Amino acid sequence: MVIDTLIDKIIEKQNPTALGLDTRLEYLPDEMMADYDPDDIDYKDAGKLILEFNKALIDELKDIVPCIKVQIAYYEMYGHHGMKAYYKTVDYAKKKGLTVIADAKRNDIGATCTAYANAYLGTTPIINKNAFDADFVTVTPYLGSDGVIPFIDVCKESGKGIFVLVKTSNPSSGELQDIMVDTKPLYEIVGQKVAEWGSGLIGRYGYSSCGAVVGATYSGQAKSLRRQLPQVFFLIPGYGAQGASGKDIVSSFDERGLGGIVNASRSIICAHKKGKYEGMNFLKAARAAALDMQADIVNSLEEAGIPMIKEEVK
Amino acid sequence: MVIDTLIDKIIEKQNPTALGLDTRLEYLPDEMMADYDPDDIDYKDAGKLILEFNKALIDELKDIVPCIKVQIAYYEMYGHHGMKAYYKTVDYAKKKGLTVIADAKRNDIGATCTAYANAYLGTTPIINKNAFDADFVTVTPYLGSDGVIPFIDVCKESGKGIFVLVKTSNPSSGELQDIMVDTKPLYEIVGQKVAEWGSGLIGRYGYSSCGAVVGATYSGQAKSLRRQLPQVFFLIPGYGAQGASGKDIVSSFDERGLGGIVNASRSIICAHKKGKYEGMNFLKAARAAALDMQADIVNSLEEAGIPMIKEEVK
Repeated sequence: MVIDTLIDKIIEKQNPTALGLDTRLEYLPDEMMADYDPDDIDYKDAGKLILEFNKALIDELKDIVPCIKVQIAYYEMYGHHGMKAYYKTVDYAKKKGLTVIADAKRNDIGATCTAYANAYLGTTPIINKNAFDADFVTVTPYLGSDGVIPFIDVCKESGKGIFVLVKTSNPSSGELQDIMVDTKPLYEIVGQKVAEWGSGLIGRYGYSSCGAVVGATYSGQAKSLRRQLPQVFFLIPGYGAQGASGKDIVSSFDERGLGGIVNASRSIICAHKKGKYEGMNFLKAARAAALDMQADIVNSLEEAGIPMIKEEVK
Repeated sequence: MVIDTLIDKIIEKQNPTALGLDTRLEYLPDEMMADYDPDDIDYKDAGKLILEFNKALIDELKDIVPCIKVQIAYYEMYGHHGMKAYYKTVDYAKKKGLTVIADAKRNDIGATCTAYANAYLGTTPIINKNAFDADFVTVTPYLGSDGVIPFIDVCKESGKGIFVLVKTSNPSSGELQDIMVDTKPLYEIVGQKVAEWGSGLIGRYGYSSCGAVVGATYSGQAKSLRRQLPQVFFLIPGYGAQGASGKDIVSSFDERGLGGIVNASRSIICAHKKGKYEGMNFLKAARAAALDMQADIVNSLEEAGIPMIKEEVK
């Protein structure tokens, strides 16, 4: 079950972080762009360059991070050549032993929902192959169970997982998610549904392969969700560029120092462009930033009295 | 402004319907599959065949339908070859004078939301081209304004539009959307936000390029939304295979017989596979089914005392 594999890797590397490959041409170092005329670059070039950048980052960081999260919007922006780069990035990361989260926030109903589930986690009918083949995909719940159960069904067959948006990290997330319904906010109602949807996918650590997206920027809400949803693993955006730090994420973790994976993208892949490591080689800068992030989170868990366990649960 | 162009075409063809190209290999007629071994078909073949099927349908129906809606899940299911077929379908339909709705239900925040908006409605930075270049894209509102305003900003620049999910057609749509917040259901709150988001995009007919998805299967709710949101144009799923008929959709229309576009996919593109036109050539069957649908809707509007106006508003 994919949630167990992910947690095993988190413990092995003592690092609950996902490298966010939200790659766009603007983030590439000048030396990679040197052979290209910016007035004459096409989608095919872009796909090739982005894949090259991603592969180099994966090689540089694969010994310290357990997981990548690929934000598909940036690949769609480069058309089908971008989607080819997406597919090849996923494939490369998996070959290097990393877990892959497709951050696609897909949502639809019935047969269409099954088509998305097959595209990201299952196999395409007739062709019997995996189109994009991630380990997890993110899912938006506005359509209700009809937009989630088809993903759960495919997860049961393929051993894969999903993360459903519950309480997101952005400033306006409260507009709908915090609306009070009787005595509780809407996001808690969605959280309860996530627990129900995932009840048949629970692994060795007591966590389900059907997890939730819970932003690091709302640590109070995360704390209450952690208590209410002991079997729901969290994908935690909002660290780094969005403003949250290690202290903000500890409320999403349990007494074993487990329970979530924290994503950071720009603060790592653009570390050579600005901040503490500006001007350094992009790979060295990314590695230094990723190690800083690991230390921040691991220290924060220790200071909170919930250091991460050192041994995998068999 | 794209909403005016769409309404002009609806009036010209006297047909408020969108041809839903939710194409998958299983829907293709046997004669198109005759040269392929089902055990040996690959994604590249699939992309080629699906494009060929779509082009034939566009050619057959372009004189009677104003618009296509392309459900992107089916194209993603065939990997980047599928996305190439998607792009070429959109391009072909636009060249034939049809409006294109990308049914992608995208949603994300900030720079990522802008990346989606650029991918579907705008231009890719540095490359300065359109990646997928639809006229409208569907958007899911769970993230609040941060997940919608970047689309609106791109619409203002590019003259394009969006449809935001408000009340969807599926059986479980009520799980979140019908939750009562004080005295009104959540979908009405979202509907009000859609009206606000779209207030700067209103065209000649009094409708905004920021529309709403409102399912035909909930005609009571549609009726009250039509009254509450006089400037919001509706994209109406649920007709045909999902059970709604012309009588169910009239509540979404105004006294000019305008206000929405009704999507049908399987009932048209699979008309040769089952039902009244089973066994007929797939193009003849699709045309017969599309003409039946047009007649059903136009007659229903007349019977309801709101026949569609015959002249465009200049």
